[in-house]
Amino acid sequence: MIINAMSETECRALLSRASMGRLGCSLNDQPYVLPIHVACESDYIYVLSTFGQKIQWMRANPKVCVEIDETGANSEWASVVVSGQYEELKEPQYSEERSHARKLLEKRTQWWQTAFAERQLKAGDSLISPVFFRIHIDSVTGLRATANGKNQS
Amino acid sequence: MIINAMSETECRALLSRASMGRLGCSLNDQPYVLPIHVACESDYIYVLSTFGQKIQWMRANPKVCVEIDETGANSEWASVVVSGQYEELKEPQYSEERSHARKLLEKRTQWWQTAFAERQLKAGDSLISPVFFRIHIDSVTGLRATANGKNQS
Repeated sequence: MIINAMSETECRALLSRASMGRLGCSLNDQPYVLPIHVACESDYIYVLSTFGQKIQWMRANPKVCVEIDETGANSEWASVVVSGQYEELKEPQYSEERSHARKLLEKRTQWWQTAFAERQLKAGDSLISPVFFRIHIDSVTGLRATANGKNQS
Repeated sequence: MIINAMSETECRALLSRASMGRLGCSLNDQPYVLPIHVACESDYIYVLSTFGQKIQWMRANPKVCVEIDETGANSEWASVVVSGQYEELKEPQYSEERSHARKLLEKRTQWWQTAFAERQLKAGDSLISPVFFRIHIDSVTGLRATANGKNQS
């Protein structure tokens, strides 16, 4: 097993095909990590959420990290780490971006099930508006482990 | 798809069978997330690493978060989030704990491959001592999504 650093092009290729990742946010230097459904395009990672701790924390501190990984045969894996900034896509100023985010996320399997189920948990039958946000990718790094050291982007 | 909060007993049962998770650490409120191999026992999560950014950051700020999830059939999933404290298992005062951590981690598949490969990447052929650390579990919460809402711990 050999690990190589991934080029930015390789990292972005992995991001473009990802449908889930782990989001890290932080408040008063207490980190918080949770799984998210994602849709990545150019310099942004789009996410749908319901209101909760992560939204409160990212509103207070927009510095975030997203880790996205893939595993392959023979224990091969690749892991990409994005440092970025939280940007909430509020109505009405971000209507167009919200619509775009929705279209991108709809291509991903069952993205709506998680959001809907989470909403049920939090609100019962009361109405909660979904929170669309995106993460501006400031920097991206990645590592890839292969059995023979070959780059398999 | 229904999501229920998991009891602490359920969360700890999931942790006890986990072999990998995502570690979140933070410095100056910039979060950093990466995949780790883990072995959980009672109030601790044991990890083997080589020296790098995460170790530097956790030495400066021991507040960490570990997210561990499982996926099942029909898009069912469970996600457990641990808030805890970084404790480095240094020689010689933690020799016994290091030996215990090694034994626990050895039961997990290929834990050593990742550490060894990472070591190769960082050091070439020069010698790097492994860093054993553990995370003291301060609190644990979890969510489980099931098709019919039944608890399937």
